[in-house]
Amino acid sequence: MQRAIIYGGRGGLGTVLVSHFKAKGWWICSVDLQPNEEANENVLVDPKLDWVLQDALVLTEMEKKVGTEKVDAIINMAGGWAGGAADSKDFIPNCDLMWKQSVWSSTIAASLASKYLKAGGLVLLPGAKPALAGTPGMIGYGMAKAAVHQLVKSLACEKSGLPADSCTLALLPITLDTPMNRKWMPKADHSTWTSLDYVAELALKWSTGLDRPSSGSLVQLVTAGGATSLICE
Amino acid sequence: MQRAIIYGGRGGLGTVLVSHFKAKGWWICSVDLQPNEEANENVLVDPKLDWVLQDALVLTEMEKKVGTEKVDAIINMAGGWAGGAADSKDFIPNCDLMWKQSVWSSTIAASLASKYLKAGGLVLLPGAKPALAGTPGMIGYGMAKAAVHQLVKSLACEKSGLPADSCTLALLPITLDTPMNRKWMPKADHSTWTSLDYVAELALKWSTGLDRPSSGSLVQLVTAGGATSLICE
Repeated sequence: MQRAIIYGGRGGLGTVLVSHFKAKGWWICSVDLQPNEEANENVLVDPKLDWVLQDALVLTEMEKKVGTEKVDAIINMAGGWAGGAADSKDFIPNCDLMWKQSVWSSTIAASLASKYLKAGGLVLLPGAKPALAGTPGMIGYGMAKAAVHQLVKSLACEKSGLPADSCTLALLPITLDTPMNRKWMPKADHSTWTSLDYVAELALKWSTGLDRPSSGSLVQLVTAGGATSLICE
Repeated sequence: MQRAIIYGGRGGLGTVLVSHFKAKGWWICSVDLQPNEEANENVLVDPKLDWVLQDALVLTEMEKKVGTEKVDAIINMAGGWAGGAADSKDFIPNCDLMWKQSVWSSTIAASLASKYLKAGGLVLLPGAKPALAGTPGMIGYGMAKAAVHQLVKSLACEKSGLPADSCTLALLPITLDTPMNRKWMPKADHSTWTSLDYVAELALKWSTGLDRPSSGSLVQLVTAGGATSLICE
C-alpha cells in the first residue's frame, strides 16, 4: 500500500487531498490542529508550542504512526493568507502568523522527510506565484512564501539531509477555487482560479512518481478558461 | 545634520558603520541588545520579547530618540550565521535563530522606516549571495536571507508603506572580513573577503544619496584580489 503524510490535512485544500488519496487506496496520516476522520492516522499539532517543541512533538508522534515502513510522499498544504504593508498595524502580527503557518509547517515537513520518507519519495511544499516578485500589500505572506521557495531549492541539493533520489517541489498557485475565496471575492473571474481537484490529482500523480518536474522546481499553476497549465522554474 | 538609525549597531559590522558615520559628522541611533557608546542615542532590544512586542517596544523607544525630525537612512546589519541540514539536530533551532536575527530585525527596520524615514531616504537590509540558490548545509540561514531579499522587493513597490521616493536595497556579501571569520577560517583566501570599511563607505555613500542602485536591488559584493565590485539584480 502506498502511503503519504499530509500536513494541513484538515484544511481546505488538505481535506480534498486526503479524500482523493484515500479514494485511490492510499494510507494517509494527517498532521493538523484537528483530526481528519477520513485519514488512517492523525498527528495533532499544539499551536501553543514554539517552533522547536512543535517539531519535536510531531516527530515523536509520527514515529508511533508510521512504524517501520517509510512513506512515499510528504505533502504540506498548511497555510493561509494575511495582508499588511509596512505601515499597517497588522504588519508584524501578520508576518508572524504567515511565518508560523507556511514556514514552520514546511520545515517540520522537511524534518519528517529526513526521517520517514522513502528513497525516491516526494516532498511537496506550499509556495505562491505572487512571492516571485514584491508583494507590498501582503509583506509577511510574500516573505514566508519566498522562504518556502528557497527551502525547496535547498532540499533539492545534495547533502540537504533528505533521502537519496527524493524530489522536492513547491506548488505556486495564483488563486485556488476555495469556498473562502468564493465568499471574499464573489465578483472575481473564477475561470482563472485553479480547482482543488486539479491540485489533488497533480499531487497524487507526482506522489506515484509520474511526470515529476525536476527536484527543486517551483511549479506555477496558471489557469485560464478553466484549464490549468504548469510553468516550472 | 544628517541622521541614521543603525540596527545591530553594536555588532561586528554595525560597530564599524557607527564609527564611520560618526567620523563624517552623522547623528546615529543604534538599536541592539547592548548600547554602542559611540552612538548619539541607543534603543535597546529585549531578546525575551516576541516579534510583535519587540516591534512595539522599538517603535515606542525610537519616538523618544528621533523626536520630530526624520532620519536620512535606516540600516540593518544585525544577524549572524548558523548551519544545519534537514537531518541535523540543530535544524529547527537554527532556523528559529536565523529568522529572529535577520528577519525580525529587518521587518522592525521596515516598521521604523514607515514612521521615521524622510522622503527619499535609504533602507539597507542584510541579504546574502548564497541564498540566491539552495543552501543545503545552512537551510535556516538561506530561508531567512531569501525572505529579506523578497522583503526588499516588496518595500521597493508602490504602496509598501514607505515614504515617497525612498530607496530600499539589500547588501549581499559572500564572506565579510571579520575577526570571527578570520578565527574560524584561518586558511581561507582572505583576498576574496570583503572588508568592513568597504561596506561602511558604501553604506555612507548610499545614505547621502550618491550612486544608489535602483530601489529593490539585491547588491552582490564580489571581492577578488582585495578589490570589490557590485552586481545588482
